[in-house]
Amino acid sequence: MADGRVERGNQTRRTVLARTVELASTEGLEGLSLGRIAGDLGLSKSGVFALFGSKEELQIATVRAAAAVFAAQVVQPVHEQPAGVGKVWRLCELWIAYSACRTFPGGCFFRSAAAEFGSRPGPVRDRVAAARAEWTQYVEQQLHDAGRAGAFREDAEPVAVPQLAFEIIALMELADSESVLHDDPAPYERAGRGILGRLRALAAAPDELPEQPTAVSPPG
Amino acid sequence: MADGRVERGNQTRRTVLARTVELASTEGLEGLSLGRIAGDLGLSKSGVFALFGSKEELQIATVRAAAAVFAAQVVQPVHEQPAGVGKVWRLCELWIAYSACRTFPGGCFFRSAAAEFGSRPGPVRDRVAAARAEWTQYVEQQLHDAGRAGAFREDAEPVAVPQLAFEIIALMELADSESVLHDDPAPYERAGRGILGRLRALAAAPDELPEQPTAVSPPG
Repeated sequence: MADGRVERGNQTRRTVLARTVELASTEGLEGLSLGRIAGDLGLSKSGVFALFGSKEELQIATVRAAAAVFAAQVVQPVHEQPAGVGKVWRLCELWIAYSACRTFPGGCFFRSAAAEFGSRPGPVRDRVAAARAEWTQYVEQQLHDAGRAGAFREDAEPVAVPQLAFEIIALMELADSESVLHDDPAPYERAGRGILGRLRALAAAPDELPEQPTAVSPPG
Repeated sequence: MADGRVERGNQTRRTVLARTVELASTEGLEGLSLGRIAGDLGLSKSGVFALFGSKEELQIATVRAAAAVFAAQVVQPVHEQPAGVGKVWRLCELWIAYSACRTFPGGCFFRSAAAEFGSRPGPVRDRVAAARAEWTQYVEQQLHDAGRAGAFREDAEPVAVPQLAFEIIALMELADSESVLHDDPAPYERAGRGILGRLRALAAAPDELPEQPTAVSPPG
């Protein structure tokens, strides 16, 4: 009986968060309202309050739920792949697909959340900043691992990993932003071209990478 | 007498927009409210309504006012400079200063506005998209002009101008976003390094560009 209640609570939590990540992606985290969510989903307002406590807790739980979706779509599929520039490029392809197929209807959840909460100090901003820092560190780790696996040319300057990670992430995020704003898949090709150009110039075996990114279809 | 009324109206309009660009920069365009603005500024609500008509008109006027500030800080100072990679780099330095000195308290107004309205079709999104497209075209034009002025190496592949403009803008926007989110000026150096690396590799006279960007001080 107690187990059944816990399971129902978890189920409600998942239902609420599946809705809030979508809403927040287009309307922002600030627009979330426990009462409205309860109404939308036909749940009791007191039940939703009991699960989340406050709007701020709901916002933070929403950021965490979005991070889990992101990890499942972008990070986990490359988990078993051996280190190298091929793995780095596969990670970028997965990110571009995550953005282009509108996993979140407003594009990358963390780009939007950073724009919305970047200048509002508090626990929500801290959670968004932490999620973005984890992603940056993950990209840097893949580049470090590729270097240790001998994937970069030895006749050139050592790869400046944080700089390269920054440039890769910058290209992907602008593609996301411009594609959403102009309803246009072309920016993904620009981002892919830029990333491949950078990786091929540094790779010990550039032929293991494609010369051009594969075309991205418009969503829908 | 009629002239006095027009002048007072223009003055009120400027006062309102100076406030709304700041508010929208941190809290978003959607949070603007004619009533609240009137209250904040001690103006009559009906007077503010008479000037702007609707929240949507106020949002669009706010985007236009932000574009005028951007043009004055970033575009106009290079207007007289002769075409070349030096002018392109100066434009980037001005953009970085515009972001780093928090011209708008939330960082680049147009990055935030794109994140907020990117997936909300309508006249506000159209105005934001147009402002961003104008900026992209301006950067592309400077690169075209630099090419025509012989600023790029002739022993290399011709410069792909839209690709290069995309990469430059991507680096600057991620620097803006990360700097605001983490209260950290370091991303500006990353952006500057990436842009200078790209421009120096393409320039017929790379020594006309610095090797490293100058350090950006934290705001405040």
